[in-house]
Amino acid sequence: MKISYRYDLEKTARQMILIHRADTLIKLILRTIIKSVKVRHAGVFIYDNSRDEYVVKVSRGHSGFKVPVGFVKIKKDSPLIRYFTDAKLSFSKEALSLDQIKRLRAKFGKTPLKKTIEELYFNLSFYKAKLCIPAFFRNDLIGIFFLGDKKNGRAFNRNEIGFLSVLASDAVMALKNAGLIEELNNQLAINNRMFLQTVSALASSIEAKDRYTSGHTERVTEFSLVIAGRINKHRKIKDWAKFIKDLRIAALLHDIGKIGVPEAILNKPAALTPEERAIIEKHPLIGVNILNHIAEFSNVLAGVKHHHERYNGGGYPSQLKGKQIPLIASIIALADAYDAMTTDRPYRSALSREAAIKEIQENRGRQFAPSVADAFLEAYGQIDKEKEKENGRVMASVS
Amino acid sequence: MKISYRYDLEKTARQMILIHRADTLIKLILRTIIKSVKVRHAGVFIYDNSRDEYVVKVSRGHSGFKVPVGFVKIKKDSPLIRYFTDAKLSFSKEALSLDQIKRLRAKFGKTPLKKTIEELYFNLSFYKAKLCIPAFFRNDLIGIFFLGDKKNGRAFNRNEIGFLSVLASDAVMALKNAGLIEELNNQLAINNRMFLQTVSALASSIEAKDRYTSGHTERVTEFSLVIAGRINKHRKIKDWAKFIKDLRIAALLHDIGKIGVPEAILNKPAALTPEERAIIEKHPLIGVNILNHIAEFSNVLAGVKHHHERYNGGGYPSQLKGKQIPLIASIIALADAYDAMTTDRPYRSALSREAAIKEIQENRGRQFAPSVADAFLEAYGQIDKEKEKENGRVMASVS
Repeated sequence: MKISYRYDLEKTARQMILIHRADTLIKLILRTIIKSVKVRHAGVFIYDNSRDEYVVKVSRGHSGFKVPVGFVKIKKDSPLIRYFTDAKLSFSKEALSLDQIKRLRAKFGKTPLKKTIEELYFNLSFYKAKLCIPAFFRNDLIGIFFLGDKKNGRAFNRNEIGFLSVLASDAVMALKNAGLIEELNNQLAINNRMFLQTVSALASSIEAKDRYTSGHTERVTEFSLVIAGRINKHRKIKDWAKFIKDLRIAALLHDIGKIGVPEAILNKPAALTPEERAIIEKHPLIGVNILNHIAEFSNVLAGVKHHHERYNGGGYPSQLKGKQIPLIASIIALADAYDAMTTDRPYRSALSREAAIKEIQENRGRQFAPSVADAFLEAYGQIDKEKEKENGRVMASVS
Repeated sequence: MKISYRYDLEKTARQMILIHRADTLIKLILRTIIKSVKVRHAGVFIYDNSRDEYVVKVSRGHSGFKVPVGFVKIKKDSPLIRYFTDAKLSFSKEALSLDQIKRLRAKFGKTPLKKTIEELYFNLSFYKAKLCIPAFFRNDLIGIFFLGDKKNGRAFNRNEIGFLSVLASDAVMALKNAGLIEELNNQLAINNRMFLQTVSALASSIEAKDRYTSGHTERVTEFSLVIAGRINKHRKIKDWAKFIKDLRIAALLHDIGKIGVPEAILNKPAALTPEERAIIEKHPLIGVNILNHIAEFSNVLAGVKHHHERYNGGGYPSQLKGKQIPLIASIIALADAYDAMTTDRPYRSALSREAAIKEIQENRGRQFAPSVADAFLEAYGQIDKEKEKENGRVMASVS
């Protein structure tokens, strides 16, 4: 093999291992083929698991024929595939050239193989392919690279075919690797979504026990995420990706402890007695008890436990003050208070949005942490369409 | 570079991409080094993120010195690391040999660099290293390979150093790739555990509303998994990994709809009126309503919805019969019934284990699907220590 091919191979192999998108990989490989072997165009059929056939993934070339991507497919029992996979038919597993088909035609043109050979000829001609290189992973044919004319018009030599075979086998491994990483990433995304949806569904079902709080969990979660987004704009929150993930879970679960409060108290349509109030005020700690053996939930628990603390120390259950209150809890506390103020409750009807905002302004530094109140007021302080759009954008960026 | 090195490089690179365990990769690379360059031993310092220093990962060689793995570490500010990373100090980034240190000593031995050079000499001597090859990813020093004497006693030549440098850079990429895959797999395992723990915690908290069913969810889940394991031993259940995952979630959530049943009915210490019974019997459908927008839950929903169907069509909510009842629901139905029989309920006290098993035998083919009843009886039918152990093994294999 020519030294220059070896360098190309090494360089490409080294790039390939860090590319984790199949399409990008295939483009890189075809670019390498076109540049190194100097062909007019090149393309690849890749086995598509879900369709159980081979489809053209990318076809590249500066001049000449362009194969329409995605539309063209080859069935597993077509002569081109069987040429490489069918033990009875296989003449060589390394490559198939148009010239070789011509030789086969001369030799077997009057035998039962005639039809197969004519179909092969038709296949290659259709794609203007002068050479096909199979790419195997163990015994599975993963794909077939096809190349058009060389720019100098000559036939492909041993050296080139050797280079292309090694490149094809490297490509298969890089594709397997990329496929694995893509699959793991997909699985993670699916699991994350399933987790949040399940937690959200269960939280809502528990919330439904409390007839006064329909939609509360969802709204508190949304307000919390918007507030956090604003805070993070001004001073970067440490380990932001994890913070926002924990905040979302904590907001969804902040009232989970209410499952431990009797329905009669939750739904009492009058003012609560001190004893009843004491029972309700246990809900943050009940929430912690429900969730506290989950190893990854230490921040989440801080949010659940302290979402009724007040900046001036007047809250519960721990009477934390000022900076003692974890940020995650301060954010949920404000979101929770705002939603409570703006919805009807057993003992009073809803405040208007303006009145609730005024209440938050007045309690900045008393009930609410100043930085959290500021972020809230920045997001919700003025009621106009532009703000709403901006909040929508913040939500999208943390989702 | 010698042709044989190029072949070794290509072969190793091709193996590396499919290895996803860092330790296995490092062993492969050191094996390649020892075989190709014919050295007495070789090892590697790898940067350890959590410790922020370099540790010896593996040291290999048939003869001579063996470096104790894991114990030996080099700090980031040691001369050996700074030789490759400190712009002010760097003489060459490609390699560092003992001979080169001797030359440096002769040249700079009377300058302020003396101490650094002596420490370098000491470092290399300590590991019996004749040559060090750095491995960079972009500008980060990921590791340093070190090699002992060549078996033929000669010095390392340009060719060998070139080969080792390319191998080191390939190794770094393979390690990054393996690290990414390991991390994704870890993340998936953590997320799965967190998901199950959270669902389990929430399910238990909801169950706690029903004073008669403490621990019920957990036991039904365990019985269900053991039964499924037995069935799968006799006839392979299709898509087993997904089946067992769904079964676990469905068993945890089978009674989730009870959240929609008033506490007064759930905890009524007397027989229920027909109206009250009708309300309780809504719980499978309420469960479905809570969970039905979760895309991945189609099998889970079948389990939740139909866990009160009976094989003879006498159950609810859909009066399914025989093979119409999804397997996942038939398994939970039996596990649920057995646990209900063997625990105290408002209207009757618990049956003995023997009586409950007899009940299940008698209702095989009536209330319970025959194959599920058989699997249950196989697992729990005889009460002896061996059975318990066997069930423990089945549980472990499905967990």
